[in-house]
Amino acid sequence: MALSNYLRQERKRHLRELKELLSIPSISTDPRHATDVKRAAKWVSDRLERAGCTKVKIQPTKKHPIVYGEWLGAKGRPTVLVYGHYDVQPVDPLHLWKSDPFTPTVRDGKLFARGASDDKGQVIVHVNALEAHLRNGGCPVNVKFLIEGEEEIGSPNLDGFIARNKKLLSCDVVVVSDTAMFAKGRPSICYGLRGLAYIEVSLTGTDRDLHSGSFGGAVVNPANALVKMLDTLKDAKGRIKIKGFYDKVVKLTAKERTAFAKLPHSDARFKKSIGAPALHGESGYTTLERLWGRPTLDINGIWSGFTGEGAKTVIPAVAHAKISMRLVPNQRPADVEKKIARHLKSVAPKSVKVEIKSLHGGDAWVTQTDHPAMLAASRAMQRAFGRKAVFVREGGSIPVVATFDAMLGVPCVLMGIGLQDDNLHAPNEKIDLDQFYGGIEAAAYLMEELGAINGQPKKAKSKGTRKR
Amino acid sequence: MALSNYLRQERKRHLRELKELLSIPSISTDPRHATDVKRAAKWVSDRLERAGCTKVKIQPTKKHPIVYGEWLGAKGRPTVLVYGHYDVQPVDPLHLWKSDPFTPTVRDGKLFARGASDDKGQVIVHVNALEAHLRNGGCPVNVKFLIEGEEEIGSPNLDGFIARNKKLLSCDVVVVSDTAMFAKGRPSICYGLRGLAYIEVSLTGTDRDLHSGSFGGAVVNPANALVKMLDTLKDAKGRIKIKGFYDKVVKLTAKERTAFAKLPHSDARFKKSIGAPALHGESGYTTLERLWGRPTLDINGIWSGFTGEGAKTVIPAVAHAKISMRLVPNQRPADVEKKIARHLKSVAPKSVKVEIKSLHGGDAWVTQTDHPAMLAASRAMQRAFGRKAVFVREGGSIPVVATFDAMLGVPCVLMGIGLQDDNLHAPNEKIDLDQFYGGIEAAAYLMEELGAINGQPKKAKSKGTRKR
Repeated sequence: MALSNYLRQERKRHLRELKELLSIPSISTDPRHATDVKRAAKWVSDRLERAGCTKVKIQPTKKHPIVYGEWLGAKGRPTVLVYGHYDVQPVDPLHLWKSDPFTPTVRDGKLFARGASDDKGQVIVHVNALEAHLRNGGCPVNVKFLIEGEEEIGSPNLDGFIARNKKLLSCDVVVVSDTAMFAKGRPSICYGLRGLAYIEVSLTGTDRDLHSGSFGGAVVNPANALVKMLDTLKDAKGRIKIKGFYDKVVKLTAKERTAFAKLPHSDARFKKSIGAPALHGESGYTTLERLWGRPTLDINGIWSGFTGEGAKTVIPAVAHAKISMRLVPNQRPADVEKKIARHLKSVAPKSVKVEIKSLHGGDAWVTQTDHPAMLAASRAMQRAFGRKAVFVREGGSIPVVATFDAMLGVPCVLMGIGLQDDNLHAPNEKIDLDQFYGGIEAAAYLMEELGAINGQPKKAKSKGTRKR
Repeated sequence: MALSNYLRQERKRHLRELKELLSIPSISTDPRHATDVKRAAKWVSDRLERAGCTKVKIQPTKKHPIVYGEWLGAKGRPTVLVYGHYDVQPVDPLHLWKSDPFTPTVRDGKLFARGASDDKGQVIVHVNALEAHLRNGGCPVNVKFLIEGEEEIGSPNLDGFIARNKKLLSCDVVVVSDTAMFAKGRPSICYGLRGLAYIEVSLTGTDRDLHSGSFGGAVVNPANALVKMLDTLKDAKGRIKIKGFYDKVVKLTAKERTAFAKLPHSDARFKKSIGAPALHGESGYTTLERLWGRPTLDINGIWSGFTGEGAKTVIPAVAHAKISMRLVPNQRPADVEKKIARHLKSVAPKSVKVEIKSLHGGDAWVTQTDHPAMLAASRAMQRAFGRKAVFVREGGSIPVVATFDAMLGVPCVLMGIGLQDDNLHAPNEKIDLDQFYGGIEAAAYLMEELGAINGQPKKAKSKGTRKR
């Protein structure tokens, strides 16, 4: 009870500190914000030191630095590695934000700012939890922090860092808070993530834009060609038509489908929450099955020709699209990218030049729900949020989870304390303050629960990842 | 011969004066250049007065002024209305210009500047021609000038002006020089223009952008939906699949197809001139037939989602496309727009909201090639350029030609003296000085030829336009 009271007393400070971090525009993809990313790394490293960590270090990489810190005072107890990221997504379209994305603002019990939930707010709960234990008699587990600045650009330097620092990072369990709870008041532990393959396709027709009157009808229009090519990727029932795309897919088990069906999900509520006139997806699957257990193909961006106000009668010389596919075990990003590239080239008219580049990729991951560390997390969530935690999967991708699974060979606990409507990667991102304060408690209880496991947690059995 | 000698002597002055006009950046679409547009109108009006016109007037409109002037000293002879425009297109991308767009520069017998060919250079030839006649014994026809400043923004105030000033503008023939000759050394008269219908379609899926991991697979992606919808507009053979689209199309006549086939066109050269790997168009038609006599459908712009550097895993909330259709007689822009709107709405999934707006439109126009005024123009071109003129059509649209046809009820002679590679609307626009000087001669001879017609030229029979 002492810990819980202490945390209640510290809420104002915890909020103030989070606001400080959120006011730094650490947009990793934008070179103009490189200095801000550095500032955020410095803030995190200072915070780790204040919380009681030792060996705190800002480790430079080819791009944005990784912050490391540790507290190893719990001799003979398990070691927990907390992973998170201090970088954030871009903020455009800026005009849709109700308050400035880097002027953290509380409205109606929610703190609005870019990165509030993804992932600054969720990283900080663990720092606050460690500090709380250290100020209230000591921490029941050893804790290491690995907080990177490149998650939103695909963590290009993280795998290498982990590979080179296996000893530094050695641990019994990895904890990641970068997902959402199933619903407010319904704590959950995530046991599966989708993987990702992301490509950009560019078509070139002529060597310059042409007047659509003088040339229209006699030359290829790359925008028309792109539309035709992209339309071959999926059928009307939402099934992806790339040859071999589904070859390696591990199907959802009957047990999983039953468990998903029991969750208090409502299509009507889901539809309303995103303002969609109707839902749409692969036929033969429920919404949760589509989101968690089936691969996807989405156009994330498309652009060609004149996009300003009014009418410009131009035949564009080039057309581009960004396309991503969410993957499930045992699809591999490189294999899927090869297949889509082959497909697009095969359907391209010979009047265009096709270029395809790979932008981003990561394996899917699904782990066992009955591992001691998973059960410990479940108990911690129940203690903090007052209700039994459910096991869920997540449609998004956290490629580093597969890396931890493969390289460190330890279980990975995904204890997200965000909510589904946090507007990640979108305007008006927020963290619910009940979730933030409850998350700090849950993180603190997780340290207790993991500390109480008899002997070290064992390796978890997972699907989708490869030993590296 | 006197006229021809006179014109030769005046070349330096003619070039100097054209350079003066070209140095005024009269970009009609850009509000920052509104004063320059006014300056250009003043320059044109002064020039008309110096040339010998009376009743010269700068007529204000809601936006940019129309310049009018006349010389009506040829009692009992036909009256020619010369139409042109003194406004120009924007210049971006500026860095691709080899010399400043508003510092007219002669290189290799060509004068480079924005507006050199479209349309300042082609307007001035007629002013110079009238002046030449007046200084050499008088002009054989009456001449009226109607030079507007809004052509590049769709002439929003021109139709109204013509409707209100039918008497002022009454004439026996309209002459427009705002097109290109078939090729250098191959004079041509244009007897057909395509019309235009231009729409913008917007799809809305959800009320905000969504994370493609958390939501992908279960919601509609408007970019995917747009691609699917647009792909229904044309089949693989380049035929437009909108119901009723071809209903009103007046087919090319066998005579026209034979005439087109005789023109010295080369697909290989055409392909090379635009840097295209291959040509592409409606099957069953040659390139010239596709360009001049068949309707088209082109995506002029498409945009949705993330279009910056790198990978952003977003499901866009909205997707847009600009689509234009070039029309032939007797298609009507409003009718075609209604049909494409109906088509797009019928193929839209119910999970998206569809909005369609009309941006721009104009009737097609095809006139008879054996009208006395057309034959007069043909002779004038032959005298100036030393070779028999061919009759051609043009893929672009000059909506005012349909207006003249419909409102004034007189033939319209399109005597372009530009060349196909003049880079209209593009960097490094130019006019070939041989074409400019030859064009002045052609304009002067046209006045002679029209003056020599026995009796007033009759109304030409045209297709595509409607009486208004």
